[in-house]
Amino acid sequence: MPHSVADIARWVGGETIGDGKALITGCAGIEEAQKGDITFLADGKYASSAETTQASAIIVPRQVVPATGGTGLPGKIFIRVDNPSLAFIEVMRRLLPDPSRHFPKGIHPTALVAKDVLLGQGVALGPYTVVESGASLGEGTVVHGHCYVGHGTCVGKNCLLYPGVILREHITVGDRVIIQPGAVIGSDGYGFVTVEGKHVKLPQVGTVVIEDDVEIGSNVTIDRARFDKTVIGEGTKIDNLVQIAHNVIVGKHCLIVAQTGISGSTRIGHHVILAGQAGIIGHLTIGDGAIVTAQSGVTKDIKAGEQVFGSPAEPIKDAFRARAHIQRLDHYAKTIKELKKKIKDLEKKVR
Amino acid sequence: MPHSVADIARWVGGETIGDGKALITGCAGIEEAQKGDITFLADGKYASSAETTQASAIIVPRQVVPATGGTGLPGKIFIRVDNPSLAFIEVMRRLLPDPSRHFPKGIHPTALVAKDVLLGQGVALGPYTVVESGASLGEGTVVHGHCYVGHGTCVGKNCLLYPGVILREHITVGDRVIIQPGAVIGSDGYGFVTVEGKHVKLPQVGTVVIEDDVEIGSNVTIDRARFDKTVIGEGTKIDNLVQIAHNVIVGKHCLIVAQTGISGSTRIGHHVILAGQAGIIGHLTIGDGAIVTAQSGVTKDIKAGEQVFGSPAEPIKDAFRARAHIQRLDHYAKTIKELKKKIKDLEKKVR
Amino acid sequence: MPHSVADIARWVGGETIGDGKALITGCAGIEEAQKGDITFLADGKYASSAETTQASAIIVPRQVVPATGGTGLPGKIFIRVDNPSLAFIEVMRRLLPDPSRHFPKGIHPTALVAKDVLLGQGVALGPYTVVESGASLGEGTVVHGHCYVGHGTCVGKNCLLYPGVILREHITVGDRVIIQPGAVIGSDGYGFVTVEGKHVKLPQVGTVVIEDDVEIGSNVTIDRARFDKTVIGEGTKIDNLVQIAHNVIVGKHCLIVAQTGISGSTRIGHHVILAGQAGIIGHLTIGDGAIVTAQSGVTKDIKAGEQVFGSPAEPIKDAFRARAHIQRLDHYAKTIKELKKKIKDLEKKVR
Repeated sequence: MPHSVADIARWVGGETIGDGKALITGCAGIEEAQKGDITFLADGKYASSAETTQASAIIVPRQVVPATGGTGLPGKIFIRVDNPSLAFIEVMRRLLPDPSRHFPKGIHPTALVAKDVLLGQGVALGPYTVVESGASLGEGTVVHGHCYVGHGTCVGKNCLLYPGVILREHITVGDRVIIQPGAVIGSDGYGFVTVEGKHVKLPQVGTVVIEDDVEIGSNVTIDRARFDKTVIGEGTKIDNLVQIAHNVIVGKHCLIVAQTGISGSTRIGHHVILAGQAGIIGHLTIGDGAIVTAQSGVTKDIKAGEQVFGSPAEPIKDAFRARAHIQRLDHYAKTIKELKKKIKDLEKKVR
Repeated sequence: MPHSVADIARWVGGETIGDGKALITGCAGIEEAQKGDITFLADGKYASSAETTQASAIIVPRQVVPATGGTGLPGKIFIRVDNPSLAFIEVMRRLLPDPSRHFPKGIHPTALVAKDVLLGQGVALGPYTVVESGASLGEGTVVHGHCYVGHGTCVGKNCLLYPGVILREHITVGDRVIIQPGAVIGSDGYGFVTVEGKHVKLPQVGTVVIEDDVEIGSNVTIDRARFDKTVIGEGTKIDNLVQIAHNVIVGKHCLIVAQTGISGSTRIGHHVILAGQAGIIGHLTIGDGAIVTAQSGVTKDIKAGEQVFGSPAEPIKDAFRARAHIQRLDHYAKTIKELKKKIKDLEKKVR
Repeated sequence: MPHSVADIARWVGGETIGDGKALITGCAGIEEAQKGDITFLADGKYASSAETTQASAIIVPRQVVPATGGTGLPGKIFIRVDNPSLAFIEVMRRLLPDPSRHFPKGIHPTALVAKDVLLGQGVALGPYTVVESGASLGEGTVVHGHCYVGHGTCVGKNCLLYPGVILREHITVGDRVIIQPGAVIGSDGYGFVTVEGKHVKLPQVGTVVIEDDVEIGSNVTIDRARFDKTVIGEGTKIDNLVQIAHNVIVGKHCLIVAQTGISGSTRIGHHVILAGQAGIIGHLTIGDGAIVTAQSGVTKDIKAGEQVFGSPAEPIKDAFRARAHIQRLDHYAKTIKELKKKIKDLEKKVR
C-alpha cells in the first residue's frame, strides 16, 4: 500500500522539499534503491550519492540544502529531519513487512516445558524447544524452535531467541535481548590447574548476566564465570562468532565485531568498540570509549578514549609512525650505503 | 570386493605399467596407504613418495616416467592418466563405501513440515527437522536431523544438509549445495545506528542467495542483507567457522579457508582465495583471482590476480621486502653505530 | 551446611594456622570471596591479595609463611598444603552444588535410539537426542538434549555431552570426555581438487578419534580425516570456536585456546600450548612443549620446547629483538639524518 511523501514526512516530523503528493512504494539503501523507493542520507558525507541514487525520495539532515537551492533535484524529493537514520528506522517500521509475522505463536505442542517454569503472558515457544525446571521467560518473549533453556535460567520480557540458541543453567537474560541462531551462553569457562603435566578441570560454577537491550550474533560463545559472573552490559551489540571468556565484564553500549575474542577476567568499559578479529588477553582493563582496530592484539590496559592498532597493539599514532618508518626502510638502507661510501672516500682523503 | 589394476585403469582411461592382474582392495592417501591399496600422485613434486609408499598401485600423471624406465618400481604398479586427482576421485567413488548409506530416507515421523511446503521427489527429512510454511525442497535433497528451514526458504535439488543446520526465512539455496553441521544462514546483519550513545537496530530485511555447487563448513555464519541480498557464487567452497557479513557478494569458484571474516558490503571476485583467518574490512572490491594469504588483514581494494600479505595487507612483494629489511635491522643498527664512530674520528682529524 | 576450617584442613591433609573452629559457608576466588568463604592462593606471586581478600580462610602453599609469623593475619585463617589448586578443587567438590544435579537421568521418552545401539549402564539421554544405528555409549555417559550421535559412533564411559553437540558417523570418543554445547565433530575435511577452474570435492571418508579426558569447547569444529583419522590426544583441552582441520594429530595434554585454527595434516606434539587466535598452516610438525603465543601465525616447523611469536611466527627472542629495533626506528632515522649532515660538513672542509 503506497503512501505519499507528505504522509511519510508527517510520521517523522520532517519538512518536504518537492512534490509531497508523490507516492512511495518501498524503502531501500541509497545504492540499492529503485524508482518509487524512499531512502536516506545519514550525513553530508555521502551527498554525492543523492545525485546518483534511483530513489524517488531521500530523507536528509536538516542542515543539508539540496544543490538546487531548496527546490530539490529534478525528479527527487527531499524530507529534511534532525536525525535521518532514526527517521528512516521509523519509516521502515511502517513500510516493511513485520518480521514477527514468521515468529512462533503460543506454545508448540512439541515444546517441552518443566512443570515449575514461569511463563509470562504471550510467551511463544517453537517446536522441539526445551525449557528446564526452575526457568522463567518474561512476557512477550519469543523462543524459536530447537532452543534450550537450562535449569533456573531467567529470560526477561520481549526477548527474541532464534532457532538453536542454547542457554545453559542459571543464566540471567534481561529485557528486549535478541540472540541469533546457534549462540551458546553459559558454557564452562576454560579453567584448568596443571598437576604433574595433566590439566585438571576447575569447576565453573558462576553464571552469565546479559543485561537489557543486548544483541548476540550467530554461533557466539559466552562462558560462565568460574565463580561470580560474566557480564554483558546494557545495549552492547555482539557480532557473529565472538568468544567471551569466563569472568569477562563488558560495559554498556559497546560494539564487538565478528570473530573477536576476549580472554578471562578482562574488564571492558562502556561505549568501547572492538573491531573484527581483535583479541584481548586476560585480566586487562579497557577504558570507556576505547577503540581496538581490526585484528589488533591487546596485551596491556587501554586508557579511556584511546585507539590502538597492531599485534601487539600500540596507540594508533605510535603504530602508524612505526609503520611509516618500515615503509621507508628501503630508503634508509640506501642512505646508509651511500653514507658508508662517502665516509670511505673521506677517510682516503684525510689519511 | 577386490578389483584388478587393469579394471581400474579402464575406469579412468589410464595406461597400466606393471602387473595389471594384481588385485586392489582399498584406496588411501600416499602416506597412509597399505599393501593392497591404490593411491595417487597429484603431480611430479612428490615423486619421492612413490618410492616410500606402501601402496600396491599408484595413479600418476601421464608425463611421469617411473624411475625404472617404464617397467615400474619393484612391487609397484602404475596407472598413467591425464589428471590423477580426478581419476582418483572416480576410483574412490567406485571403491569406497557410499556415504549416502547413512543418510535419512523418506520423511521421518518426527519431522514437522508445514502443510504448504513443496517437497520434490525423493526428499529425505531426518528426525526433529522443522520446515516452515512456504518453504520448498527440490528433488533428491537430503536434510539430516535437527535442521531448521525457515518460512519461504527455497532449497534446490540434490542438496545435502547435515544435522543442526539453520536456514532462516526467505533464503534461496541452489542445487547440489552441501552444508556441514551447525552452519547458520540468514541471521540478521550487524547493523545499528547510534543515537545519543545507544545503538538502535537497523532492520535486516534482505536475504541470502547460495548458488549451485557451493559447500559451506561447520558453524559458518552468513548474514542476510539489510535490503537486497548477500550472495555466495556458484562453486565457491567455504571452510569451517567463516563469517560472511550482510550484503557481501562472493563470486564464483572461490576458496574461503577456515575462520576468515568478510565485513559488510565487500565484493569478492571469481576464483579468489582467502587463506585461513584472513579478514577483509567492509565496502571493498577484491579482484578476480586475487589471493589473500593467511591471517592477512585487507583494508584496501585488491586488483585482479594480486597476492597480498600482512595486517594491514600489502602486495606480497612489498610485504616481503619490508620483512627482509626488518630482519636486517640488527645489521643496519650496527652499521649506523660504526659510521657514527668513523665520523667522530674523521671530525677529530679534520678539526 | 557449614563446615569448620579444621574439617576442611582434614579433607586436604593441610595444616591450620588460626582458628580451626571458624565456620566456612562457601568458596570463591580470592577477589570475589566474601566473609565466610574459603579461597586459595595458587603460589606466592599473588600473596598481596591474601591481605585484601574478604575471605575468612585461605589455602596457601606450604612454604608460605603468613606475614604475621605463623599466627595468621587478624581475622584470617590459613590452611597450608602442598598444592593449593588441587586442594581447592577437593574443597569445591565437597562444598559446591553438584553440577550433575541438573543432568538428564535415564532415557528421555523423546530420545530416538536405533534398535542396535549399545547403551552402558546408567547412560542418560536428554530430550530430542538422536542416536543412530551402530552407535554405542559407555556406562555413565550423559548426553543432554538436542545432541546427535551418528551411525557407528562410539562414545566411551562417563562422558558428558552438553546440548546441541553433533558427532557425525563413525567417530570414536574415549572415556571422561566433556564436550560443550554446539561443538561439531567429524564434519567433512576441506579437500578439493581444482579441475578447469572448478573445485571438485574429495571424499572425506576418514574418522576422528578423541582420546580419554579431552575437553572440547562450545562451537568447536573438528573435521574428519580424508582417509585415516584426525586425533585429539589424551588430556588435551580445547577452548571455544577452535578449528581443527582434517588429518591433524594433536598430542597429549595440550592446551588449545579459543579461536585457534590448525590446518590439515599438521602434527602437534605433547604438552603444546597454542594461545588464543593462533593459526598454524598445514603439514607442519610442532615439537613437544612448544608454545605459540596469541595471534601468531606458524608457517614453519617448531622445535620441542621452543616459543614463537608473530605472523609469520619466529622464535620469541628474534621477534622481540626485531620489535625493539622497530620501536627505535625513530631514533635510527634521526641518527641517519645527523650523520648525513656531519658528512656534508666534513666534505666541505676536506674539499
